[in-house]
Amino acid sequence: MSENIKCNHKILFGKRLKKLRQEKGVSQESLALTAGLDRTYVSGCERGLRNIGLENIYKLAIALEVSPELLFKEED
Amino acid sequence: MSENIKCNHKILFGKRLKKLRQEKGVSQESLALTAGLDRTYVSGCERGLRNIGLENIYKLAIALEVSPELLFKEED
Repeated sequence: MSENIKCNHKILFGKRLKKLRQEKGVSQESLALTAGLDRTYVSGCERGLRNIGLENIYKLAIALEVSPELLFKEED
Repeated sequence: MSENIKCNHKILFGKRLKKLRQEKGVSQESLALTAGLDRTYVSGCERGLRNIGLENIYKLAIALEVSPELLFKEED
C-alpha cells in the first residue's frame, strides 16, 4: 500500500471524524475530554496524521454517540 | 473504558474479521499474504488480541474486498 494511499485513509478518517464532531456541535477539547483522550491527539486524527488504533476508534465513536461504522462510511 | 469493554471491542472486531474471511473462503495465510501482513498478526486480530491500527484495518478490508465499515457493523 503506497504512502499516498495510507495518508488518504488517515485523511478520510479525519474528515469523517471532524464532520461527525461538528454535527454533534462539540469542540475538539470537549470530544477529547469525553473520550478520555488528549485534545492534540483528536486534532492529529482530524488532520489525518494518526494511525489510530481500534480502542481509540471506539472511544471516539462512543463519545460521539455513533456507531464506529460511521467513521468508515464512504460518502454517498 | 474498562479493560473488559476494551477486550470486547477487539474480540468483536476479530469475530467479524474471521466471519468475513471465511465468507470469502480464504485462509488466514492467504488473507495475510494479500494484505501484506503476517499470518500471526491476522490470527492475533481474529482472537481479539490486537489493537489494530487504521492502516491495517484498511489493508484487511481491501484484501477482503469489503468496505471497512463491515468490520465494525453490529450484528442485525
